Amino acid sequence: MVKVDVWNCVSTEQVADCRVFRVRQDHCDRNGSGETSDFFVIESPDWVNVIPLTNDGDVVMIEQFRQGTREVTLELPGGMIDPGETPEAAARRELREETGYSSDDWILIGASRPNPALQSNTMYHFLARNCKKTSEISLDENESILTKTVAEAEVRRLIADGVVTHSLVVAAFLYLQLLEQASATGPLRPLSACP
Amino acid sequence: MVKVDVWNCVSTEQVADCRVFRVRQDHCDRNGSGETSDFFVIESPDWVNVIPLTNDGDVVMIEQFRQGTREVTLELPGGMIDPGETPEAAARRELREETGYSSDDWILIGASRPNPALQSNTMYHFLARNCKKTSEISLDENESILTKTVAEAEVRRLIADGVVTHSLVVAAFLYLQLLEQASATGPLRPLSACP
Repeated sequence: MVKVDVWNCVSTEQVADCRVFRVRQDHCDRNGSGETSDFFVIESPDWVNVIPLTNDGDVVMIEQFRQGTREVTLELPGGMIDPGETPEAAARRELREETGYSSDDWILIGASRPNPALQSNTMYHFLARNCKKTSEISLDENESILTKTVAEAEVRRLIADGVVTHSLVVAAFLYLQLLEQASATGPLRPLSACP
Repeated sequence: MVKVDVWNCVSTEQVADCRVFRVRQDHCDRNGSGETSDFFVIESPDWVNVIPLTNDGDVVMIEQFRQGTREVTLELPGGMIDPGETPEAAARRELREETGYSSDDWILIGASRPNPALQSNTMYHFLARNCKKTSEISLDENESILTKTVAEAEVRRLIADGVVTHSLVVAAFLYLQLLEQASATGPLRPLSACP
């Protein structure tokens, strides 16, 4: 059976420490052949995002300024998983901190790789149903966030119209769609292969 | 009307040059208030990926080793847009180079931001219908790629089962789904807000 080449890491060094991510340079060997090449990889903690649904059929979204694109974006709540924290605990915390909403009904709907070529981490996507406003928002020093509730069908329209553009938000809605299709003939359940 | 804080870039410097991306450090001012903070941003060329459909209803996918996750992945063809190249020209080139397939029927189905918090670039997602094998694959020096044709419904199953995990591939299939829904009562057409 034909196999693709695998680059085995022979040595690695840190190139830059950028607070929320680090860059490493891997020195690699192709299939143990002695042929070598270098690859740069961005290391971050794993991430979570949440589709928070209210009983009115709204998605609780957030508006904030983002430095990468230097734009104000409309996104799902989410963020980095803290050391020792489970993905679900991080999702619950980020939802509470960024929106003041909480939920008693959590489902892991997918786990994706933001960019397997360049990034080592995983994004865990959650659905939180029965969301209710239970507290004030509680932001980090540099965060400034507005909460917006948007009807679920309207979010899909905003994605189609290029208003909601965050790739990891778009991915979350594909997982939701697949879950809804899989659950059409039975109870809503987590996807089989999610950890 | 309440607005979120905006961080205006006062000065910027390059922190690392990593061949396929660079890292810059932006020194920013909050709302012109004199309060400052630094942000790290990953700059890359814009990217493209393609859902290549054959007339048999298969998606032409590729298998390759990815250094970020140190795994062999099953993905859509795609890559970086070259200087001066249009997104569609890049998509046509990447499809041809990575799979040997070509198409006479291209639709831009979405444009997403891989990570507005950390990355400045855009990913253009294309649908290419009527794909045919017209040449041999033509790879860059470090590329080793296998082509696999997978039925479209099976790709969605592989995403749901956590086999296909690339976030930007997952996002592409949401754009396809939205396009199919929008086109259910009319001819297939590009989404309105795509550039």
